[in-house]
Amino acid sequence: MKNPREILEAYKQGSVELEQACAELSGFRDLGHAKIDHDRARRCGAPEVIFCPGKSTADLTSISRELLEKSPTLLATRATPEQYAAIQTAAPDAVYHERARLVRVQRGALQTRPGVVAVLSAGTSDIPVAEEARLTAESYGHETMGIYDVGVAGIHRLLHHRERIEQAHILIVVAGMEGALASVVAGMSAKPVLAVPTSVGYGASFGGLAALLAMLNSCASRVAVVNIDNGFGAASLAASILRSCMGGS
Amino acid sequence: MKNPREILEAYKQGSVELEQACAELSGFRDLGHAKIDHDRARRCGAPEVIFCPGKSTADLTSISRELLEKSPTLLATRATPEQYAAIQTAAPDAVYHERARLVRVQRGALQTRPGVVAVLSAGTSDIPVAEEARLTAESYGHETMGIYDVGVAGIHRLLHHRERIEQAHILIVVAGMEGALASVVAGMSAKPVLAVPTSVGYGASFGGLAALLAMLNSCASRVAVVNIDNGFGAASLAASILRSCMGGS
Amino acid sequence: MKNPREILEAYKQGSVELEQACAELSGFRDLGHAKIDHDRARRCGAPEVIFCPGKSTADLTSISRELLEKSPTLLATRATPEQYAAIQTAAPDAVYHERARLVRVQRGALQTRPGVVAVLSAGTSDIPVAEEARLTAESYGHETMGIYDVGVAGIHRLLHHRERIEQAHILIVVAGMEGALASVVAGMSAKPVLAVPTSVGYGASFGGLAALLAMLNSCASRVAVVNIDNGFGAASLAASILRSCMGGS
Amino acid sequence: MKNPREILEAYKQGSVELEQACAELSGFRDLGHAKIDHDRARRCGAPEVIFCPGKSTADLTSISRELLEKSPTLLATRATPEQYAAIQTAAPDAVYHERARLVRVQRGALQTRPGVVAVLSAGTSDIPVAEEARLTAESYGHETMGIYDVGVAGIHRLLHHRERIEQAHILIVVAGMEGALASVVAGMSAKPVLAVPTSVGYGASFGGLAALLAMLNSCASRVAVVNIDNGFGAASLAASILRSCMGGS
Amino acid sequence: MKNPREILEAYKQGSVELEQACAELSGFRDLGHAKIDHDRARRCGAPEVIFCPGKSTADLTSISRELLEKSPTLLATRATPEQYAAIQTAAPDAVYHERARLVRVQRGALQTRPGVVAVLSAGTSDIPVAEEARLTAESYGHETMGIYDVGVAGIHRLLHHRERIEQAHILIVVAGMEGALASVVAGMSAKPVLAVPTSVGYGASFGGLAALLAMLNSCASRVAVVNIDNGFGAASLAASILRSCMGGS
Amino acid sequence: MKNPREILEAYKQGSVELEQACAELSGFRDLGHAKIDHDRARRCGAPEVIFCPGKSTADLTSISRELLEKSPTLLATRATPEQYAAIQTAAPDAVYHERARLVRVQRGALQTRPGVVAVLSAGTSDIPVAEEARLTAESYGHETMGIYDVGVAGIHRLLHHRERIEQAHILIVVAGMEGALASVVAGMSAKPVLAVPTSVGYGASFGGLAALLAMLNSCASRVAVVNIDNGFGAASLAASILRSCMGGS
Amino acid sequence: MKNPREILEAYKQGSVELEQACAELSGFRDLGHAKIDHDRARRCGAPEVIFCPGKSTADLTSISRELLEKSPTLLATRATPEQYAAIQTAAPDAVYHERARLVRVQRGALQTRPGVVAVLSAGTSDIPVAEEARLTAESYGHETMGIYDVGVAGIHRLLHHRERIEQAHILIVVAGMEGALASVVAGMSAKPVLAVPTSVGYGASFGGLAALLAMLNSCASRVAVVNIDNGFGAASLAASILRSCMGGS
Amino acid sequence: MKNPREILEAYKQGSVELEQACAELSGFRDLGHAKIDHDRARRCGAPEVIFCPGKSTADLTSISRELLEKSPTLLATRATPEQYAAIQTAAPDAVYHERARLVRVQRGALQTRPGVVAVLSAGTSDIPVAEEARLTAESYGHETMGIYDVGVAGIHRLLHHRERIEQAHILIVVAGMEGALASVVAGMSAKPVLAVPTSVGYGASFGGLAALLAMLNSCASRVAVVNIDNGFGAASLAASILRSCMGGS
Repeated sequence: MKNPREILEAYKQGSVELEQACAELSGFRDLGHAKIDHDRARRCGAPEVIFCPGKSTADLTSISRELLEKSPTLLATRATPEQYAAIQTAAPDAVYHERARLVRVQRGALQTRPGVVAVLSAGTSDIPVAEEARLTAESYGHETMGIYDVGVAGIHRLLHHRERIEQAHILIVVAGMEGALASVVAGMSAKPVLAVPTSVGYGASFGGLAALLAMLNSCASRVAVVNIDNGFGAASLAASILRSCMGGS
Repeated sequence: MKNPREILEAYKQGSVELEQACAELSGFRDLGHAKIDHDRARRCGAPEVIFCPGKSTADLTSISRELLEKSPTLLATRATPEQYAAIQTAAPDAVYHERARLVRVQRGALQTRPGVVAVLSAGTSDIPVAEEARLTAESYGHETMGIYDVGVAGIHRLLHHRERIEQAHILIVVAGMEGALASVVAGMSAKPVLAVPTSVGYGASFGGLAALLAMLNSCASRVAVVNIDNGFGAASLAASILRSCMGGS
Repeated sequence: MKNPREILEAYKQGSVELEQACAELSGFRDLGHAKIDHDRARRCGAPEVIFCPGKSTADLTSISRELLEKSPTLLATRATPEQYAAIQTAAPDAVYHERARLVRVQRGALQTRPGVVAVLSAGTSDIPVAEEARLTAESYGHETMGIYDVGVAGIHRLLHHRERIEQAHILIVVAGMEGALASVVAGMSAKPVLAVPTSVGYGASFGGLAALLAMLNSCASRVAVVNIDNGFGAASLAASILRSCMGGS
Repeated sequence: MKNPREILEAYKQGSVELEQACAELSGFRDLGHAKIDHDRARRCGAPEVIFCPGKSTADLTSISRELLEKSPTLLATRATPEQYAAIQTAAPDAVYHERARLVRVQRGALQTRPGVVAVLSAGTSDIPVAEEARLTAESYGHETMGIYDVGVAGIHRLLHHRERIEQAHILIVVAGMEGALASVVAGMSAKPVLAVPTSVGYGASFGGLAALLAMLNSCASRVAVVNIDNGFGAASLAASILRSCMGGS
Repeated sequence: MKNPREILEAYKQGSVELEQACAELSGFRDLGHAKIDHDRARRCGAPEVIFCPGKSTADLTSISRELLEKSPTLLATRATPEQYAAIQTAAPDAVYHERARLVRVQRGALQTRPGVVAVLSAGTSDIPVAEEARLTAESYGHETMGIYDVGVAGIHRLLHHRERIEQAHILIVVAGMEGALASVVAGMSAKPVLAVPTSVGYGASFGGLAALLAMLNSCASRVAVVNIDNGFGAASLAASILRSCMGGS
Repeated sequence: MKNPREILEAYKQGSVELEQACAELSGFRDLGHAKIDHDRARRCGAPEVIFCPGKSTADLTSISRELLEKSPTLLATRATPEQYAAIQTAAPDAVYHERARLVRVQRGALQTRPGVVAVLSAGTSDIPVAEEARLTAESYGHETMGIYDVGVAGIHRLLHHRERIEQAHILIVVAGMEGALASVVAGMSAKPVLAVPTSVGYGASFGGLAALLAMLNSCASRVAVVNIDNGFGAASLAASILRSCMGGS
Repeated sequence: MKNPREILEAYKQGSVELEQACAELSGFRDLGHAKIDHDRARRCGAPEVIFCPGKSTADLTSISRELLEKSPTLLATRATPEQYAAIQTAAPDAVYHERARLVRVQRGALQTRPGVVAVLSAGTSDIPVAEEARLTAESYGHETMGIYDVGVAGIHRLLHHRERIEQAHILIVVAGMEGALASVVAGMSAKPVLAVPTSVGYGASFGGLAALLAMLNSCASRVAVVNIDNGFGAASLAASILRSCMGGS
Repeated sequence: MKNPREILEAYKQGSVELEQACAELSGFRDLGHAKIDHDRARRCGAPEVIFCPGKSTADLTSISRELLEKSPTLLATRATPEQYAAIQTAAPDAVYHERARLVRVQRGALQTRPGVVAVLSAGTSDIPVAEEARLTAESYGHETMGIYDVGVAGIHRLLHHRERIEQAHILIVVAGMEGALASVVAGMSAKPVLAVPTSVGYGASFGGLAALLAMLNSCASRVAVVNIDNGFGAASLAASILRSCMGGS
């Protein structure tokens, strides 16, 4: 996006009209209620993403169609099978990753980018969130690894994976219940840890609050936390980090 | 304490008077506001204990004096140096464990009892609570070990102590911040774990709430939790367990 | 499990190969996502347990089959009738305890172990959690007693059971609403109390939070608390205690 | 206080002037910021009461003076010794009940009223709140009894007082920590229970929240709860009940 | 219930056998899991009450049958139409108050008792809880009045009822949302107020928490609070108060 | 509504009877449980509004019929399609705004009033609440504008609308998740902001609590907040402001 | 502030230089860490305000000096006497309103603006917050009235002020404890209500949370809420409303 | 740190002794209670850091001395002036950054590492936390920029810094109150955002909870959050990211 100085000068020199200069200062196309932000991919290095909960099937079909006119990639998170079907109406080539509740459209070859993301998860119930994270990172073009079911109730399982862990640039740690895995991973590796608390648990887990608080209070520094169950957010941040630090268009 | 059946029969046979039978049914001596419960040691296998916060020095002196007339052992927890001085007025032989904020009076030899209690703590700031637990268990006559500063930020430190841990009958795990140590210890040993969350931390630790919730949600079963900073309570329970299961008068 | 010293020496003496030494250091078999931990029974003295909520019937059938190849006992907690049916596909001899929502497979005679566990519950609505605890302790080979509907609204009912209570080594106290039973039981007996708050209640019980907080703040020491509705966890801890203190293989 | 119909008619008949009729409809004297409500005693059967926290000594002196011009009785709750001194400036005959942090002025004989209030408290730390309640009820002219240190950690102590408890018309139960005493008392007597949670406790008592929730969730009906540490409020309600149901001017 | 002294003497004089003396000391009949407490009516002046949520229709039928063998009155609260039908199987004369979700069986004439209970409610959505309270008080034999839809959004509606309010001995105030009605009523009358917060509301009412906290913090003393939606509890307490203070068998 | 002085004088002069004078002092018509407040429109400048959740279809039909006898306008909020049908039975000309879940009856021309209300919303999921607010303001006769999907994740979209925003008298800002839009809008305009947090979000949004707290803590003064999802309330307040400050009958 | 279109054209026509055009687009002067926003008064119709808590006396002196170079009015809120002295160093004509903890500098005549603000408060302890609000509104040039000590515990006191209340354009209602005054005021007047919860209270008021929740859940619409104790914020919003709707430069 | 395989082989080949092999498997030196972890710098790329709160001056002196024997750099966070003096006893060359409450010892030239960290803060009260973050990142050898006082109440100030922001690799955003800055920054830049909520605020900020929740719920993905006031943690994570992705020893 041009900065204001450039726009001012371009307008003075007549290379752009007044309306266009104003438009560039705001930089988006107004299409009624849904202001699809086509500048976003350029600004943020990411395709537009649809968060499915609460969206009607009709809305999903039309939003998908609109987005795919401009972009060769689409990601829809937390999609039910019915919502997947609605997206398929607009994009017959859409693929559904059931466990991760993720729909992907990838037209043309996926552009690979430097940087490796490892996703670790504590229990089998955390895998949907972990896979949401891993597939999102993969969609951004990064190499990924999934190291699952390595919770602290059997700490030796985790220790076994030490070498693989050291090969990643960013570690995404997904855990519910007491969320201890984030601290343990950060304690055994100097790699950066993005922690994802999950709502797995019952009673005093209070919907993931216990894991969230535990991760925020990690005795190991080098841990930051995203919202409960937000595998997508952790992977988006990881991709943003890798692009910012390791480049790749 | 006699059961009602025994009291009924003793009364019928005339071996006790009516007043005494009634008294035995209630089993305590009423001394005005402070009903010192001399039956408690017999019932519970423990000396009376003074919880110091909020007690005036005058009260502490008189309570200590009263208790020591009946019992050769006294424990006062969370005592400030001033409160220690007040107890010393009644008991010049009282010993102050400053770090644990614990005052002990032990007249005559400490009666040893079977069972070993290991106290593990995560950070150096957790040691006051850990020592309160360890010294309490010691006061009950048990062998103790203190394994401190083995938090999960350096998991290898903890692993180093595996063999010692296996020699204990009960593990008391003391940790603040994210409280992950309880889960990790329970994951690497089959020994029972009594977890003590501490108020060590800041911000989203909410005075120990984060550690408390983490411990309650431990993915490893075999963990139970006491109140925040309640090292005394964990050790009391450990002593109760050892007496109930391993005997010793 | 061997300690590192033994593994190092065995490897040096050639009694184990490099790969095996490494494997022993990590001690588990990697089977893709689900790392079934066959070493756990040996380490923890317990059969592998399935926590059913959120698991599909297909998963339950395959997990049950896998576990029963290695172990003669299986416990599945919080199982719906449909989930029981799925386990039955793998194990036609599985028994369903409906009230406790527990599925058990016990092949061969149950190995008895020393130690008696008493489970007390406050109201009739707490019985499912109480039975989960009692049957779990029974599965570990312990003698159990269930003393139900002895809540503090009719304190004389509880007092009536004093003698039976004294015959147990560990007391598990299950109560919802205000959770007062744990304090009352701990006040009348010197036995160790493991308290299980339940989600029984409404309004300001906040899903069991009221009972949980009450139990954590028990004025009687010798009380530790597990997660809301976690009857299984209390019994696992009781079994761990009994094994650690009273032996039995 | 007259009802609107009476005021309308009195005005029409000329027995009151317009201004007075309006004044009677609002029924108080406006004295700037502090609208001392002299009608209140008549309406509510109680002297005006001063809640001391946050009030300056100068304010306390002038408020006391103003109130005592109209009323022979004054109650000041949660008064520090300095605040007591300030009230004494206006009322040299003011008496300070240190433990209860209560100041009373009683000019002329206390008017006795029918009805007996028993105040029970769990631990010695709860006595200040209990005494605030007991002395308040006494100030309203009722017979009171204080039954203290009868917490559930030694349930037999409480049972001993059964007969005395049955002689009261209203039971005020004061308890901190887990607040179980209210349920236990309500379970052993059919008398009405007004429960006062106290802020006695630490850690997960969260300033009295644990006791408050426990009392609200009492499995025994016949329990209602006032704010944390609000001994005065419980006694005011008790006095209101006794006046409403047993009369006495 | 006899006191211990009487039982001791009766046993000594031989007027009761040992077994009976023991039984009287515990005072209930053990019928397996469900210990129906037939002594309760005598102790508490109330029929046994069934709290329906979570109870199966089979359980309800058998519990109803058992209770009605001993008592001519039965109250079942929060009953669904299905649960009513189950009670009807045992008691064809059971009456269902749909709005209050209350089932009553009343065999023989209702015994009237002195004392009038007024139930006030804020909005029409609070009426189910208000009616639960009013009908419960009526079941205890008291005269009742229902003053509904007098919330503070139209304060003049409430003021209109002042005279009726003064005719009651106890005021039960039922309100959701901000729960202000309790304070307003307590401010305009000297009668005792039992406040019932309801779960009526949304968003930041947090299931009735807002009303609960408001009522606990009432600036008017003479207010005590029961659990959210607990109309039954408020009425039980009111009945207990009236019996204790105004008599009636 | 007349003030008491006017009523007193009118009664004295005989221009009103006693009953009417009393009635005017209370000013409403008592129709059993549902006290429809026909004076409210006059007092508050608004038609009576029905909050639909929890109301039966039978109730909705009868309430609608009653209200429309007295008033030419009716608003029903949070109506399901079934509830709309019930209102239609009483008012065939009722219009359903599905997205806003709002039913309106408008008989005769809508009376316009001065003042412009702009409603801004952050995401597409916030639009139902935003439309509830906008249509409510429109029903009160005000000009409205809807500026939707201008959340802070693309701040330039919002900046684009600066000029339109300045044309409004009151800004209603509707946002879920982190609720930052309220602060940002208040930071870029000197117009008053009424903020509506929504329950849009998941995990640590805790049903809208995160947005609510954020809005209450806005670093920009000139922001006040209504309950979560309460679009109706914000618009009612806006209408009240405009009428109070800009007039219009 | 100019809009982008105007700045673009002015730059093209040469009436402003490039640097100035860029500066106008950002519109502030960068003075290191403290970016004093001199454009704010123009944008927001208000003088810059200093929130004193946590600011050192040295900082306060220098900030005051800087601000008064540009503006004839200054408001400093929540100032201690020491902080007032620090401001006086820079502005000897500063006036301290002790009760409101507010410092004002007003050089030249205060510019009056249309619109009347009434501030109502519940108890005497709420007056500091109420006065902060009233004096702030006065500083903005509005006529104000303070109607204090009209809490709902004596509802007739409030009713007495009905006519005065109707003379205001905006009502600011300040109340702690249960915060009921906001609902009651909104119920008796059609004027807009801005509610300020205060931290006055103890125990379950949780620092003002009880009043905050009550106000957010007001059954009367036409109420919006600001942060706890934020009298300044409510008055700022009132001033913004009056300027937006009633004009005045 | 060597992996187990390497240690096994080295031991077999005799290049290390048994004791050393065991020691390497645990990898630290046990010095009694305080297990200083000299391996940590190697593992984590960071000097040992002292968190000062709660540490005695004597402890600080000895810990500083011990650490500086092994490492040329030391960081002590949240140090009071007294604590700084204690560190100076061990390290006369220690430098105190008062605003950031940070003590640094840097012996020899600071080793620069690739990667730029920008720290943005909302208000002047947030600067201590922001400076703690910035100086920590600087201590790790990174280039830093501090962009302070750019809160959303004046959004144009922030927009002015767009170009500088794009020059950083990682953005640390520090904000209290409503914490909106994190979302706004993430919305205008594609750079990764590490958000630090601060405890700046009052009332409903609940010690930073409002900002914490807002940041966790950011509508912009690419945001992760650390504990309240944890500037050090955010910078440690940033350094870890830069080392992992951009290298530098």
